[in-house]
Amino acid sequence: MAKQKKAPRPKAITPKGFRDYFGTEVLERTAMLREIAEVYHQYGFDALESSAVETVEALGKFLPDVDRPNEGVFAWQDEDDQWMALRYDLTAPLARVYAQHRNDLPLPYRRYAMGPVWRNEKPGPGRYRQFYQCDADTVGAASVAADAEICAMLSDTLERVGIPRGDYLIRVNNRKVLNGVLECMGLNDEGQRDAVLRTIDKFDKVGEAGVRELLGKGRLDASGAYIDGVGLSDDQAEPVLAFLTSGRLEAADTLANLRNAIGESQIGATGVDELEQIAALLNAQGYGPDRIMIDPSVVRGLGYYTGPVFEAELTFEIFDEKGRKRQFGSVAGGGRYDDLVKRFTGQEVPATGVSIGVDRLLAALREKGRIGGSLQGPVVVTVMDKDRMADYQAMVAELRNAGIRAEVYLGNPKNFGNQLKYADKRESPVAVIEGGDEKDRGVVQIKDLILGAKLAETASLEEWKDRPSQYEVARGDLVAKVREILDLHA
Amino acid sequence: MAKQKKAPRPKAITPKGFRDYFGTEVLERTAMLREIAEVYHQYGFDALESSAVETVEALGKFLPDVDRPNEGVFAWQDEDDQWMALRYDLTAPLARVYAQHRNDLPLPYRRYAMGPVWRNEKPGPGRYRQFYQCDADTVGAASVAADAEICAMLSDTLERVGIPRGDYLIRVNNRKVLNGVLECMGLNDEGQRDAVLRTIDKFDKVGEAGVRELLGKGRLDASGAYIDGVGLSDDQAEPVLAFLTSGRLEAADTLANLRNAIGESQIGATGVDELEQIAALLNAQGYGPDRIMIDPSVVRGLGYYTGPVFEAELTFEIFDEKGRKRQFGSVAGGGRYDDLVKRFTGQEVPATGVSIGVDRLLAALREKGRIGGSLQGPVVVTVMDKDRMADYQAMVAELRNAGIRAEVYLGNPKNFGNQLKYADKRESPVAVIEGGDEKDRGVVQIKDLILGAKLAETASLEEWKDRPSQYEVARGDLVAKVREILDLHA
Repeated sequence: MAKQKKAPRPKAITPKGFRDYFGTEVLERTAMLREIAEVYHQYGFDALESSAVETVEALGKFLPDVDRPNEGVFAWQDEDDQWMALRYDLTAPLARVYAQHRNDLPLPYRRYAMGPVWRNEKPGPGRYRQFYQCDADTVGAASVAADAEICAMLSDTLERVGIPRGDYLIRVNNRKVLNGVLECMGLNDEGQRDAVLRTIDKFDKVGEAGVRELLGKGRLDASGAYIDGVGLSDDQAEPVLAFLTSGRLEAADTLANLRNAIGESQIGATGVDELEQIAALLNAQGYGPDRIMIDPSVVRGLGYYTGPVFEAELTFEIFDEKGRKRQFGSVAGGGRYDDLVKRFTGQEVPATGVSIGVDRLLAALREKGRIGGSLQGPVVVTVMDKDRMADYQAMVAELRNAGIRAEVYLGNPKNFGNQLKYADKRESPVAVIEGGDEKDRGVVQIKDLILGAKLAETASLEEWKDRPSQYEVARGDLVAKVREILDLHA
Repeated sequence: MAKQKKAPRPKAITPKGFRDYFGTEVLERTAMLREIAEVYHQYGFDALESSAVETVEALGKFLPDVDRPNEGVFAWQDEDDQWMALRYDLTAPLARVYAQHRNDLPLPYRRYAMGPVWRNEKPGPGRYRQFYQCDADTVGAASVAADAEICAMLSDTLERVGIPRGDYLIRVNNRKVLNGVLECMGLNDEGQRDAVLRTIDKFDKVGEAGVRELLGKGRLDASGAYIDGVGLSDDQAEPVLAFLTSGRLEAADTLANLRNAIGESQIGATGVDELEQIAALLNAQGYGPDRIMIDPSVVRGLGYYTGPVFEAELTFEIFDEKGRKRQFGSVAGGGRYDDLVKRFTGQEVPATGVSIGVDRLLAALREKGRIGGSLQGPVVVTVMDKDRMADYQAMVAELRNAGIRAEVYLGNPKNFGNQLKYADKRESPVAVIEGGDEKDRGVVQIKDLILGAKLAETASLEEWKDRPSQYEVARGDLVAKVREILDLHA
């Protein structure tokens, strides 16, 4: 008989498209989520944490005839052959929660939610299959005052997490205005309307001229492929382009342009009125066009939402991976979707909300150098005599009780160089040393590792001697001396 | 042709064994996780957030010949037919992370992690398929100083989250001592040793007499079924029972009993020495047996861990669902497991750690009335005239800028009674009213809803008149008056 083969060792890797977050990355995200939650809470929004797992039926993400519905979501069958899936956003679960608990929830229901969502999509550079969202929604409020409130809150939130006024802009559009434009064009064919909507969605990428081509005969894209057009004549395409480019600095001018573009359309007029009300409400509260502006060139999500649409962009420039300057772009988006709960109950329930891409926002703050670098590590108490571990643990306890992050070296203490290398890897500001001789004399050695590193880089031998980075102090002065050094580098 | 049937509406329910968390439940958990993280951080532990999804290979949870490995975990196949699964704890991902990133991580590596884990198990009352864990582990430290540190940190953490000294006890045992007992019994048959381990695991449930029966001939359980015993003679079983019942108030007495129980066993002596060192280290830091004690009756996880084992119990009594008094029981557990990373690298890496059951801890604090009840809701500004929404939004902005949680009513304002009902559902302490008349006179009405509710319950008509719960103040005094009422009820 063949000798039984040993099972090969498992590979220590994350699944494709997933990653781990370490130390300051986790702390920075936690701090940002907390700040966002505080703003949302202050606005009267209540926390909701729904389960990460939903029935596929409730998510409504696939056609019922697909055998393995793993398109876009991660899904599996439970023991009763029911399909379950990881949530792909926080809005679909909100719809389920609201439909399930609507008799117990206040009306309107303002809720916020934050947490990871999962997408079964092709990963790419900076595109992961698990990422954080941070949403606020108001369910059951038909008034555009709810939309205006979401915009104002988004503005407050961005400033709260460290994006100063002037470095961001929230742009507001309205799907109803676009519907009015299409109506006034006499474009009643559903297929053609959808084609126009899909084309408009490319405005960000291909610009005005590109959209003009795509609405007409078609266009050669960057890869050389020919993209068929919608087949509108130039005259027919004009109102759509007028809509997209109607934005002016003054809301009144933008609104006047829009009223022209929609002609006699009733739905279009409602849309422009809504934008006018939103602008008026925000202006009355001091949110001028330097923070929130009416801008019909916002197209993202226009196909999905049913009324006002908002998008927050960071306006400062960063350098991309090839060293070229570019704007950072969108970090949050949202809008009104009035058919949220209808799938479950048959009842139309108006809702509006926003989703902040927390990971993108963190990336922006990091690229601007406003967060990141590395936080200071803990004070490391070294171990000179492993039988006196209790003494060293007493030291770290004293330091912690004084509010100083501190740890004792827990590796093999034999090689003292390894202990200092460890302190270096931990980015420790201070190391504490107490050998037998120090113990006998009632003193400890305290090394200023930050100064030490600086001296090692730049100092001459003379300077080295003159500016010692190690101090001997009485054991009783341990905490005071460590604090003095920490304050020096704070 | 048959008329196409409309798809039935999806059911708005969570999958079986999952639930949603609302408002204060979320806030209380967030606050607890933050406090725990602060203690862990202060001890020098670094945050780690690994992905929720792992390869099944890395989790190592199933036999390779099982076709659908959905036993215990939620798993599915990705587009390359690789099995992926949701993590079932935070220790298996730590093993993968450490093996993957070991060249970049400090040695020893202290890390903490907090987040949901998922179990594909039968749900029951209070048993969900998604719940939070909050772990701290030290990887790469062989010294029992690392175990003592984990115990001390656990003690600090419990007190930090609101469990006062005396209401909890951390009990410490050691697998090596049990191994020593088995060795000294001459129990070298692997099958029999495993049977003894499994029996010991029932000590919590069946007690000393029950274990004695199960080690011997067997036992009739509560349901009337006969459970076969291990088949040891009374004499053979005695050392195991001596081990389990060797705990005394003084560590020295316990240790002496244990030395008797292990006879000449080398591994047993190592185990007792380790317990002695842990007790000495903790005593030197002031963690006496009122907080942490050596207790060989701790058996949970003794089959899993390789050295010291710890368990934190809440010692206060609560009433169970049938109104009977019982101890709350375990809220955290952990121990040393020296083969964590070996699966991946072939190298043995010592590790020790603890996992706090955050949801259980929250339940304990709730049952003791230390958290919970409901937090105060926001101040509600009512809408008397929907064309003056901007005025009302200005009021909530003023209140928020003064640090007061406030919101404007966003439902249909027509029926004022509905607005007050809404404020009631939101548990608002204060409602603000400004009709046309108030606007003209430059005043606002401020209703103290908490006092109002009290009066409605208990007051006579006389008292009602004498103690109005509604005040008219100048518009400029809005914030001051609201704050006065909030302070009154704080």
